Amino acid sequence: MNLLGSPHCLLALFTLLGTLASSALAGKILVFPVDGSHWINMKLLIEDLHHRGHEVSVVRTSSSWYVKEDSPHYKSITVTLPEPVSIEDQDYFVSFLNKMLKIQKSGGSPLAIMQFYWQMLTGLSQIHKEASQLAVEMFENPVLMQQLHEARYDVALIDPGLPAGVLVAHKLGLPTVFNVRWITSGEAHSVVAPSPPSYVPASGSVLPNRMSFIERVKNMLHYVLNACIDQYSVFSVYQELAERYFGPETSFKHMLQATDIWLIRSDFVFEFPRPIMPNFVHIGGFQCKPSKPLPADLEEFVQGSGEHGVVVMSLGTLVKGLPTEITSEIAAGFARLPQRVIWRHLGERPQNLGNNTRLVEWLPQNDLLGHPKTRAFVAHGGANGVYESIYHGVPVVGLPLLFDQFENILRLEIRGAAKALEVTKLDSQSFYAALQDVLHRPSYKDNMMRLSRIHHDKPAHPRESAIYWIEFVMRHKGAAHLRTESYKMPWYSYHSLDVLAFLLLLVVTLGGAMIFTTRFLCVRLCRTQKSKLE
Amino acid sequence: MNLLGSPHCLLALFTLLGTLASSALAGKILVFPVDGSHWINMKLLIEDLHHRGHEVSVVRTSSSWYVKEDSPHYKSITVTLPEPVSIEDQDYFVSFLNKMLKIQKSGGSPLAIMQFYWQMLTGLSQIHKEASQLAVEMFENPVLMQQLHEARYDVALIDPGLPAGVLVAHKLGLPTVFNVRWITSGEAHSVVAPSPPSYVPASGSVLPNRMSFIERVKNMLHYVLNACIDQYSVFSVYQELAERYFGPETSFKHMLQATDIWLIRSDFVFEFPRPIMPNFVHIGGFQCKPSKPLPADLEEFVQGSGEHGVVVMSLGTLVKGLPTEITSEIAAGFARLPQRVIWRHLGERPQNLGNNTRLVEWLPQNDLLGHPKTRAFVAHGGANGVYESIYHGVPVVGLPLLFDQFENILRLEIRGAAKALEVTKLDSQSFYAALQDVLHRPSYKDNMMRLSRIHHDKPAHPRESAIYWIEFVMRHKGAAHLRTESYKMPWYSYHSLDVLAFLLLLVVTLGGAMIFTTRFLCVRLCRTQKSKLE
Repeated sequence: MNLLGSPHCLLALFTLLGTLASSALAGKILVFPVDGSHWINMKLLIEDLHHRGHEVSVVRTSSSWYVKEDSPHYKSITVTLPEPVSIEDQDYFVSFLNKMLKIQKSGGSPLAIMQFYWQMLTGLSQIHKEASQLAVEMFENPVLMQQLHEARYDVALIDPGLPAGVLVAHKLGLPTVFNVRWITSGEAHSVVAPSPPSYVPASGSVLPNRMSFIERVKNMLHYVLNACIDQYSVFSVYQELAERYFGPETSFKHMLQATDIWLIRSDFVFEFPRPIMPNFVHIGGFQCKPSKPLPADLEEFVQGSGEHGVVVMSLGTLVKGLPTEITSEIAAGFARLPQRVIWRHLGERPQNLGNNTRLVEWLPQNDLLGHPKTRAFVAHGGANGVYESIYHGVPVVGLPLLFDQFENILRLEIRGAAKALEVTKLDSQSFYAALQDVLHRPSYKDNMMRLSRIHHDKPAHPRESAIYWIEFVMRHKGAAHLRTESYKMPWYSYHSLDVLAFLLLLVVTLGGAMIFTTRFLCVRLCRTQKSKLE
Repeated sequence: MNLLGSPHCLLALFTLLGTLASSALAGKILVFPVDGSHWINMKLLIEDLHHRGHEVSVVRTSSSWYVKEDSPHYKSITVTLPEPVSIEDQDYFVSFLNKMLKIQKSGGSPLAIMQFYWQMLTGLSQIHKEASQLAVEMFENPVLMQQLHEARYDVALIDPGLPAGVLVAHKLGLPTVFNVRWITSGEAHSVVAPSPPSYVPASGSVLPNRMSFIERVKNMLHYVLNACIDQYSVFSVYQELAERYFGPETSFKHMLQATDIWLIRSDFVFEFPRPIMPNFVHIGGFQCKPSKPLPADLEEFVQGSGEHGVVVMSLGTLVKGLPTEITSEIAAGFARLPQRVIWRHLGERPQNLGNNTRLVEWLPQNDLLGHPKTRAFVAHGGANGVYESIYHGVPVVGLPLLFDQFENILRLEIRGAAKALEVTKLDSQSFYAALQDVLHRPSYKDNMMRLSRIHHDKPAHPRESAIYWIEFVMRHKGAAHLRTESYKMPWYSYHSLDVLAFLLLLVVTLGGAMIFTTRFLCVRLCRTQKSKLE
């Protein structure tokens, strides 16, 4: 908005001054992050909050992989768990990926799908059992709990991907803000907003928003499956703790649903439009920023690509490398390109690597995607990378591997900004053909640029919005006016089934009574007439 | 947000510069307003758009009451209707109110309720039949339509309270923005967002958001009733025109639902939290602004109130006056107060008017509500006045008369910021007692101040947001990414009834087949065993 133009300048200034005045207090924030790529996001918010003068305390486990104990931006509260959380082991995802690739290779048979879900279910359950011990360790440490009580935090900022912090915040009576995309097996929206299965694809379904009848049947089954997974392999873990520490009447799900503000790492330039709630703030792409100049040697390599430009490939933080049979197909595909290629690859060096391809152990992804010579991005479809590609307008060749990556790439594909490949069916020819398509059919670049323009066109940068609403909760001790309490109703009341049953009963009773009366009167009348005739 | 603080200043500046660049174009906007108090709101947006350099054309009828032909801010397109729209006659609402008061007086009997709805239904149907002729007159004027086509507007800004403009915008192929709170008999949200009847009170139900079982039954019946009213007395009028001008396959409701952006004149500090959609922008209270000094004589009168302060009373633009038996009760109630009273009253002067009460034909409402001496506001509960009282933090004694006013006052009452009275049961004693309550129980002022603080605490002034999103639609030729197209599904598919029926059939068939097979096998087995034994 043109803050300098008249007559808005007065209004804008007024708003600005009001906000400056009300945000003057520096507060205290208790943070419960999730390790890995989630932490990269949370760290940005913590840095911003620190720069705004707030005192930030981060609860981490002693085995944490990414969340360091020492930081200029926060104080650590380190908790030692009886067993380290599996995902804090850097090799966990390598072996998990290999298992999953094996299942995917066996095709989409019902057995394979069941195996896939079983893997996920047991994996999830295991991780949550380990991670939930954070709450137990804290609750069983009266000195720590006393300190936390006395610290008088203003708000708990929680990534509820692993939601032990929700229990602790509840114990401390703190208002909460979630920095979230996924909770347990479901997308964050579905925990409090209505999600009509007719046009909101279930998490894990990899379905589009415009579904055929059969797709809608599949989607409904996915909803049921997700509800079962949530109930039996995730919520049950925390529900047990909720009952242990807060009494048998407590519902852990209600604690989640009572959150004041949901900072949702989604943006509708990417996510399918769907019902939302007034306390949702969409901050998808909040980590994106303009690119910086590349290191000299990389810049030289990139400039050497001439008019053809470069292709960038990275499969994210979790996956170190792919099996050799796949990487050699990728290398062969790249070798046929006139473009130069920068490939983040941590495994064995493929034998058939082309001269145009440089392997690196790490790459400045944001700076490369923002480079004017970059023509395409070969990506696994992790949310961070997807938003960076939208931010910089770089079309994508998708190689989804795990979790939400399939759905993320599907969303870009439906918008005509990406081409998806199945990693287990990949050969050099199909990979090369997909690259050619994305590099030379202008629709991919045009569509991605359109998404980029829309993504940039916001009243405020999503990072500003995130900080604004965290501070809002601190100023007003919550955001109750934005939050329904409808979740406290029994499910049959929430869905009005009791009302419908009552109305049906009423109609049947009244209808029955009318029929009975009419019949009775008819019979009487007939008899009278008969006796008259006789 | 502190736009000047580091490290946000860079981000903020970046966003600002991006927006300035992209909003550089001055565009053309076609406006379809609704007369009366709705126009007061629309006019503000038009003035802002004019100041932003856009060219605004306003479609008005020749009998328009408020929308003037000449304005420095817009060009008029005046259409003469065969019959003037009833509500453009200033006396329409006086006679309508009298009818309604008569019905209310007769109590809440089922007959009275049916009469009330019948009045509303016939009234609504009549108004829509008259107002819809706007589209007919325009479509049947090929010269005008040709001019409009050639003008190449960027967007149509429509108040769909009377939605003839939706048809015209569709004909011109324009993206649309609604400035809306009510469409036909329903609240705007319910046209595209899910509205669970278990916690979203239906328009006209005057029910709270936390309902008892019986209240939920009533609410469900109100939903059914509203759907019938919409279908038979409102939509049918426009549906006929849609079919006449766009062919038999056209759905007028789909045209409404396809709107790019809904600027909804609601704010959740006032409205109950409920599901919303990504293309909703809540601009409730966007007309509010800081108060200006009062005219000298009024300031003198106000200052003369000393420590007691003043009470302000106004019943809005539509209603000129109340029946004498009511005004004399009000006058008697006011006369007993130590406060001074400023009462906007256009009818007969009550005989028993106190010395402390000044009658005026018009009052600077916003400036009076923002005056530090103002202690309470006696209001009918029209949305504009409600937001002004929230903006300035003045508690309310509510005298709702028509339409949404009952529900508006109920919302303030539930939040502890207002006391509602039934105008037909009003006597001087109950009126005085209510005033005493609101003036002297601190909870009313405290609650209103809390609402006021929350209402002011926004990342941008709602008027800025409104302009931002109108220009967004102009820049991107719509906002398709924020809009579901789920409304295009048949109702049974939207509600997944076909999928549920199919799954039920599947379960029954499979179950039946299993029972049949088991039975068949058992019988075979028994026979074999029997024959063996024999």
